[in-house]
Amino acid sequence: MLYQDLPREKLVELRKELSAEYEEFRKAGLKLDMSRGKPGLEQLGIAHDILTDDSCVSPGGIDCRNYGNPDGLPELRELFSAVMRVPASNVLLGENSSLSLMYNCVMWAYIFGVGGCKPWSQCGNVKFLCPVPGYDRHFAITEEFGIEMINVAMDGSGPDMDTVEKLVSSDPSIKGIWCVPKYSNPSGVTYSDETVRRFAALRPAAKDFRIFWDNAYCVHELYPDDAVQLADLYGECVKNGTQDMPYIFFSTSKITYAGGGVAAVGASDSNIAELKRRTSIRTICTDKLNQLRHYDFIKASGGIENIMRKHAEHLRPRFEKVLEILDSELSGTGAACWTRPSGGYFISFETLPGCAKKVVASCKEVGVKLTPAGATYPYRRDPHDSNIRIAPSCPSIEELTVATRLLCLCTKLATVEALLSSN
Amino acid sequence: MLYQDLPREKLVELRKELSAEYEEFRKAGLKLDMSRGKPGLEQLGIAHDILTDDSCVSPGGIDCRNYGNPDGLPELRELFSAVMRVPASNVLLGENSSLSLMYNCVMWAYIFGVGGCKPWSQCGNVKFLCPVPGYDRHFAITEEFGIEMINVAMDGSGPDMDTVEKLVSSDPSIKGIWCVPKYSNPSGVTYSDETVRRFAALRPAAKDFRIFWDNAYCVHELYPDDAVQLADLYGECVKNGTQDMPYIFFSTSKITYAGGGVAAVGASDSNIAELKRRTSIRTICTDKLNQLRHYDFIKASGGIENIMRKHAEHLRPRFEKVLEILDSELSGTGAACWTRPSGGYFISFETLPGCAKKVVASCKEVGVKLTPAGATYPYRRDPHDSNIRIAPSCPSIEELTVATRLLCLCTKLATVEALLSSN
Repeated sequence: MLYQDLPREKLVELRKELSAEYEEFRKAGLKLDMSRGKPGLEQLGIAHDILTDDSCVSPGGIDCRNYGNPDGLPELRELFSAVMRVPASNVLLGENSSLSLMYNCVMWAYIFGVGGCKPWSQCGNVKFLCPVPGYDRHFAITEEFGIEMINVAMDGSGPDMDTVEKLVSSDPSIKGIWCVPKYSNPSGVTYSDETVRRFAALRPAAKDFRIFWDNAYCVHELYPDDAVQLADLYGECVKNGTQDMPYIFFSTSKITYAGGGVAAVGASDSNIAELKRRTSIRTICTDKLNQLRHYDFIKASGGIENIMRKHAEHLRPRFEKVLEILDSELSGTGAACWTRPSGGYFISFETLPGCAKKVVASCKEVGVKLTPAGATYPYRRDPHDSNIRIAPSCPSIEELTVATRLLCLCTKLATVEALLSSN
Repeated sequence: MLYQDLPREKLVELRKELSAEYEEFRKAGLKLDMSRGKPGLEQLGIAHDILTDDSCVSPGGIDCRNYGNPDGLPELRELFSAVMRVPASNVLLGENSSLSLMYNCVMWAYIFGVGGCKPWSQCGNVKFLCPVPGYDRHFAITEEFGIEMINVAMDGSGPDMDTVEKLVSSDPSIKGIWCVPKYSNPSGVTYSDETVRRFAALRPAAKDFRIFWDNAYCVHELYPDDAVQLADLYGECVKNGTQDMPYIFFSTSKITYAGGGVAAVGASDSNIAELKRRTSIRTICTDKLNQLRHYDFIKASGGIENIMRKHAEHLRPRFEKVLEILDSELSGTGAACWTRPSGGYFISFETLPGCAKKVVASCKEVGVKLTPAGATYPYRRDPHDSNIRIAPSCPSIEELTVATRLLCLCTKLATVEALLSSN
């Protein structure tokens, strides 16, 4: 029965029961961290052969220990090219962090301008579109550069493209958009083919408008035999003559090691030439030894897909356990709704308006740390205070069970209290 | 006998002989690259245990494969702290490149300002002092940001401090200085204690003046038993209350692997807090696996000094061979002078004014690539066209012998031609 339909005295009674249950959790002395999409211990074991690989000369004869090859190891660029769906010559390898590659792209456009246009720092009030809920670290970059962030709603097929098209084509101060096109962080949504085609067909008012296509979860299936297909943005852009719009980001953070993977950016001929030139002032070369280890490991594994199957075996039961508990505890209560992603790292959870902060605080009070409420919105301001990001990857199934039950309990309690105080 | 004292007919005869010799080199079909300070193959073998190290958990219990520890592995920060002579809590680890850490410091001061001051981008014509000859990649960074570079002469005890003091204390648009204080690139000079003390005692007109102290060769002795001591800049600054002036850079590029080492920056409490905060927007963490491998290797080697002795064994005969040939071929000719460094990676070679470009071009024409003439000066403009950087680390002794003989020959030829055309 919907909580909204319960009479007041029933709600009061429920609050009492739920509060008692909550006190039991307090006594349990929990200490769990579900705040970030951190791989679990089992997952870190998958890439063990990277640790034991002692090779230093690439198949093409490059001594990876020395300086040289500022674009990164050609063999690995070739391999990434297939996943990123841009030609290998248009792939530039970074260090372990795709975030820092995104940062560089924003930074260089801000300082020097991109594509021959005026630096964003000289363009007055520069704006980015931010599909919400989204990834807090994206928003932190644009916030750092004083770029105004405009929320764009997401639905099951991606960002609201009517709004995106309207804003991008009419406002030259809109210089970019943050996208996680597959298994979006945190909603788990994969952009539909139609959405991707509409992105490629954008006609921005700003010549230097860029799509920051953070394809962080491009191969991160929970059900590999029913893999979700994301349309090929770069290919669509080439067809439309808009290939200078996207920067395409990729990393192995959730394929090999979260802290020691290899990141890459792919872009059009002129974009990548600009990135390579700027990069050459910043550093002599990236760590080719780690690139070689990655190449060897992926080759020996028979490709990235085989590695991802092992991750799925670890992640799938965790996602299923969380969903099972949410279903059994909250279905029919009207207290929350949530996504059922078939890949990626997150479940997006929506409380009634005004309850998310309270729920996260209650969980924290008894030892379960969730992603801070609001984090999935620019400026940490969730207009409805309703979104919570659930990150099931790191805890054990037992821990997840406890933490999700607690989340359900705190959600019910916050809902009851909200209903009581609004009556 | 000095070439300058030879009669014209003797010079003509000499030119004929030298030209004939040069044609012999052409026939030899050489293909050598001495343009960069690249470690040689033997040197890359010294850190072999890094390749075979398969550990992933630090002594302190950190799983280096995962996210976390954005400041870098505590154990390695502690270890670097001793070499960098700043407290471990004031050390921030980077990726493999100290250059990119320098880039970040310039960039952030440029975009956001440093120490609460106005961003350099809003300060009009910003200037850096550049002791010359110096390191081309330093100059490339300041050039990229449109920062005006002012040459400051170097002598045997470092930059001309009278000039540095005068300029820095009077001109608030001077925001920084590039320094390689030990075994300076390319001159091999180590700053005297007096010079270091005068640096620490600077009273800059610009509150946000920063010393970019690139201590790239701090442990890079050719004669380890007669190690040259560089005074402790950070300690001197603390005494003077000027600890916010220096950024201190370090890397293992020439201790472990040129392409796969670990870089670090050390700075005062407030500077390092600012760098950490900016870094946290850019990336989640650096590659702690590589940091752990470095920690293990340095520990197992009994410290950095023991590792550096092995490098010295490789480098010393190379430096000595080059100097032996320069001595025997050019001493007493007046055609050139050169430095005799006891550490670092370079010999600095001075031709007569107006000859360096010609010498480098002549070497290149017959297959020996040197660092481009002019590269050791801001804007690639050597005002006297006389400085050539010799990088003896990479070629074999045999190759070095040939290349140095060719350099001597081309220098003689250019000198004779210069004298003939000025007569």
